[in-house]
Amino acid sequence: MKRCILVILDGLGDEFIPDLKGTPLEYINEKLETLNYMVKNGIGGLHYPFKPGIPMSSDTAHLTLFGYDISREYSGRGYFEALGANVEIRDGDVALRFNFATVREDNGKLIIEDRRAGRISTEDSKILAKDLQQALLDAGLPVVVKNTTEHRGILIIRPEKNELSWKITDTDPHEINEPILKSQPFEGLSPDEHKAAQVTANTLNEVTKIAYKVLSEHELNKLREKKGLPKANAILARGAGKAVRLTSFKEKWGFKPAYVAAGALYKGVARGVGMDEIKVEGATGTVNTNLEAKVQGVIRALERGYDFVFLHIKAVDNLSHDMKPLEKAEFIAKIDKALKPLRELDDVVITVTGDHSTSSLRGRHIGMPVPILMWSDRIRRDRAERFYEDELVTKGGLGFIDGINIIPLMMDIADRVMEYGLRPSPKPVFYIGATGEPLKI
Amino acid sequence: MKRCILVILDGLGDEFIPDLKGTPLEYINEKLETLNYMVKNGIGGLHYPFKPGIPMSSDTAHLTLFGYDISREYSGRGYFEALGANVEIRDGDVALRFNFATVREDNGKLIIEDRRAGRISTEDSKILAKDLQQALLDAGLPVVVKNTTEHRGILIIRPEKNELSWKITDTDPHEINEPILKSQPFEGLSPDEHKAAQVTANTLNEVTKIAYKVLSEHELNKLREKKGLPKANAILARGAGKAVRLTSFKEKWGFKPAYVAAGALYKGVARGVGMDEIKVEGATGTVNTNLEAKVQGVIRALERGYDFVFLHIKAVDNLSHDMKPLEKAEFIAKIDKALKPLRELDDVVITVTGDHSTSSLRGRHIGMPVPILMWSDRIRRDRAERFYEDELVTKGGLGFIDGINIIPLMMDIADRVMEYGLRPSPKPVFYIGATGEPLKI
Repeated sequence: MKRCILVILDGLGDEFIPDLKGTPLEYINEKLETLNYMVKNGIGGLHYPFKPGIPMSSDTAHLTLFGYDISREYSGRGYFEALGANVEIRDGDVALRFNFATVREDNGKLIIEDRRAGRISTEDSKILAKDLQQALLDAGLPVVVKNTTEHRGILIIRPEKNELSWKITDTDPHEINEPILKSQPFEGLSPDEHKAAQVTANTLNEVTKIAYKVLSEHELNKLREKKGLPKANAILARGAGKAVRLTSFKEKWGFKPAYVAAGALYKGVARGVGMDEIKVEGATGTVNTNLEAKVQGVIRALERGYDFVFLHIKAVDNLSHDMKPLEKAEFIAKIDKALKPLRELDDVVITVTGDHSTSSLRGRHIGMPVPILMWSDRIRRDRAERFYEDELVTKGGLGFIDGINIIPLMMDIADRVMEYGLRPSPKPVFYIGATGEPLKI
Repeated sequence: MKRCILVILDGLGDEFIPDLKGTPLEYINEKLETLNYMVKNGIGGLHYPFKPGIPMSSDTAHLTLFGYDISREYSGRGYFEALGANVEIRDGDVALRFNFATVREDNGKLIIEDRRAGRISTEDSKILAKDLQQALLDAGLPVVVKNTTEHRGILIIRPEKNELSWKITDTDPHEINEPILKSQPFEGLSPDEHKAAQVTANTLNEVTKIAYKVLSEHELNKLREKKGLPKANAILARGAGKAVRLTSFKEKWGFKPAYVAAGALYKGVARGVGMDEIKVEGATGTVNTNLEAKVQGVIRALERGYDFVFLHIKAVDNLSHDMKPLEKAEFIAKIDKALKPLRELDDVVITVTGDHSTSSLRGRHIGMPVPILMWSDRIRRDRAERFYEDELVTKGGLGFIDGINIIPLMMDIADRVMEYGLRPSPKPVFYIGATGEPLKI
């Protein structure tokens, strides 16, 4: 049985960029020594993370890539955000991500001017969050407010007399010059669920109103105004989610899993499925992250006995959102260099892919298929010799697969999976080693 | 409308074999006159039998290739094993395949030393099975024990007061040096189903204990020990299955189907879906099988009015399990020669593929896609000119398909399928000729 390494370059895969005469991956391809080596001596293809044409959020995409059926097993992003930010979330809670934002009042509506309040500093956010928390407690609202980094924060709503539901809409309209929205229950809920969602939405709406009042009058915002900084006078909430107990990655696939990631959401998803963290100095989730140290973290994890390691590199996506295709390409080349030590590992199956494609012309996630390679010392090979979209379309021996099939394919190459139909265990698992109890005579 | 021939080379498709500088199919490709002719004048591709990365057992793979949805219509391998071995199985019965095996007692557990008791002879097995049957009857257990070939046998559990269920785990751990397992109900059954499964599992566990006692003390085993042969002192059961009434192949697709196969399991699956047997002298399911006679059997079936013939050739898989890639390649070349007369047939659609890929480096089924070709005198052609994995990846006009789509594709080429939406028949069938009752005026 081999160990498995899943390398996710967030937002890998792109569109035709006229200036580059191809995708970023295609443009930079000649410099990709490691990735080209791996696909040449391995097998490639493309995956639609969920369904063709559906641009995935990072949390749903990662869950799918980890083999979870998000159409059944997903219950909102807020849980993973809270987990990733080390904010305690209990059974029954509903958690949301929020931004400190700048709004103006217009005819009784709050119109958004800046969704991130000028990327307010973590120091300022901390002060505002603390005072907002106190005001909400004074108002008798059962909520927890925690800032995380810069404009980001987590809002936890706790149940009191009534149960809560995560099936409520965002107050964040996701666009500037739009009003903050009233949170509402999803349509089509059962009466009980509707009631729970209404209670939750009401609390969120109340929090949003109080936040505007408290923050507008806050001394710090007056100071910010004097300095010419945008006021952080509102909060925009999104991605309500409840604490869930997902089948752990270990129980599902039989691995002892670890992760190397810096972004809070990715840590949250990895923790949510029960992976252990490998801490790495200098991992930041930005272009300045210490790529070499992250790769050494993967190797250290294997040495410590983990047999599945998830390595997440975020900034490929950031550069796409910032619409910098050339910088995206160059950053991929940097990653390629950093990944080189992985080639020296024995008894591993390595997959390199993205969680979704991101267009660096449009600055958003897109539903186009994502390049993927699998490499091992014993594997079916194909004719693909270069790691970029078109080469994999025409020569990729995996063809077009669904994201949810990636882990089974890696396990198959790693000799970790039983034939379909064998059933030594009462549990519906299919990894080698899953057995029931011995017969006592 | 054309007749259809489905040729399954069991375990076709492989990995990169360093010594052969490619897969066995790629290595031997220049010698494949018939298969290359067919793909050059036809259309090729690859299929994932069930899902990418899932290595299929032969029974589930064949059912899928016959167009059955195993996630809904499968109820265990035992039924097909029993059918193939000509062991009577009645409604309500649960059937299991078993092996005579060699175990040692260790701390109340039975540790497996040889899963096939040194491939014990059919003669010896027959004696043991007969005496085991008697002992189980004496113990009042409602079971039938039949040996088939060598170490193989069928165990039928009959219902008495209580209903039975096939949803029980194997006692066979599928590995040596592991203990025989206690059979248990699958997790997640309804209370009624759990009860039925518990009754069935209890009987199997009782049989397993009695078998160890009776066989350990059997005179024949004492004799075997003297001769230096491993004792056949235990049975390992697996693949519990119940008698099912699958929609027949005829009813589902409108064919009058026949099969040419030697292996018991393949006969069982073909019988289970209602195909008629074409008996062929010298068909053995081994490398020594009479390939020419089997192909003549196919032609004879067409002459006798069958319009669908399933031809199964087993030894491609055996050579992969034995990790003999060169012999696998050479045997495929032998098959290629034998298939030549099929080129002379008129009005046929011929598909050649495998039920799953088997790695001849690892000696096991793998979840990689399987080469497929379809040939007819009137068909969309593609650029593929050679029948091997990479050629089909890069030039296969069918692309990557699921195993369950093979029969509809053949029927489409054969002009046997109605447009989606046409509905002259009350039944949910879609073959040409399916109609309801005439209107009386």
